Amino acid sequence: MKNYNKISIADSARTELHDQLELTGAEISINTLTPGASVPFVHSHKQNEEIYGILEGKGKVVIDGEETDLSAGDWLRIAPPAKRQFFADKTCAITYICIQVKQNSLENYTMTDAIV
Amino acid sequence: MKNYNKISIADSARTELHDQLELTGAEISINTLTPGASVPFVHSHKQNEEIYGILEGKGKVVIDGEETDLSAGDWLRIAPPAKRQFFADKTCAITYICIQVKQNSLENYTMTDAIV
Repeated sequence: MKNYNKISIADSARTELHDQLELTGAEISINTLTPGASVPFVHSHKQNEEIYGILEGKGKVVIDGEETDLSAGDWLRIAPPAKRQFFADKTCAITYICIQVKQNSLENYTMTDAIV
Repeated sequence: MKNYNKISIADSARTELHDQLELTGAEISINTLTPGASVPFVHSHKQNEEIYGILEGKGKVVIDGEETDLSAGDWLRIAPPAKRQFFADKTCAITYICIQVKQNSLENYTMTDAIV
């Protein structure tokens, strides 16, 4: 495997990075929902923690029946079994990043994993 | 642990999410380098793959001595042992996300991990 991969993503409803970047520790997608649109299903996960970051726009997420407003700069961790569904605002699109990682897989980070 | 955590991040030179969101599978930081600035050291990792996404602005990264220009929409995977250093453009800031995950930790994802 090469020491690094790089891609440039275009505007798209959904871009998945795992295969394009040969990721081995995460799947990452960048998603845009048009005004009034939603992910068309509720879902949960078997073993993956998901981290969502709102990059642009606004909307809401419903997690286990609890509704939370979202706008740019908001970040969430959602536990694997939580049932989730994302919605754009009725008048405004929302663009967000979704990061899937295996729950409890991180052992060290930053000061305990870096070599400076 | 709660089924989800949510925070709103402010403009800052560096925001780290692991502790604030109780992440268990990743450390994630959002970083801004001002025009002409750089991360002040070269670093590599012991076991973590890093994924970088350029959110705004432009700059460059040097990976194992190879220089690559960066602009918004660029995404990179960098293998743990690769030596890396990020730089803002001389005339323009750069804002990027850095995601640390344990190399080879992802087992299933999306269609093989989700429950719809």
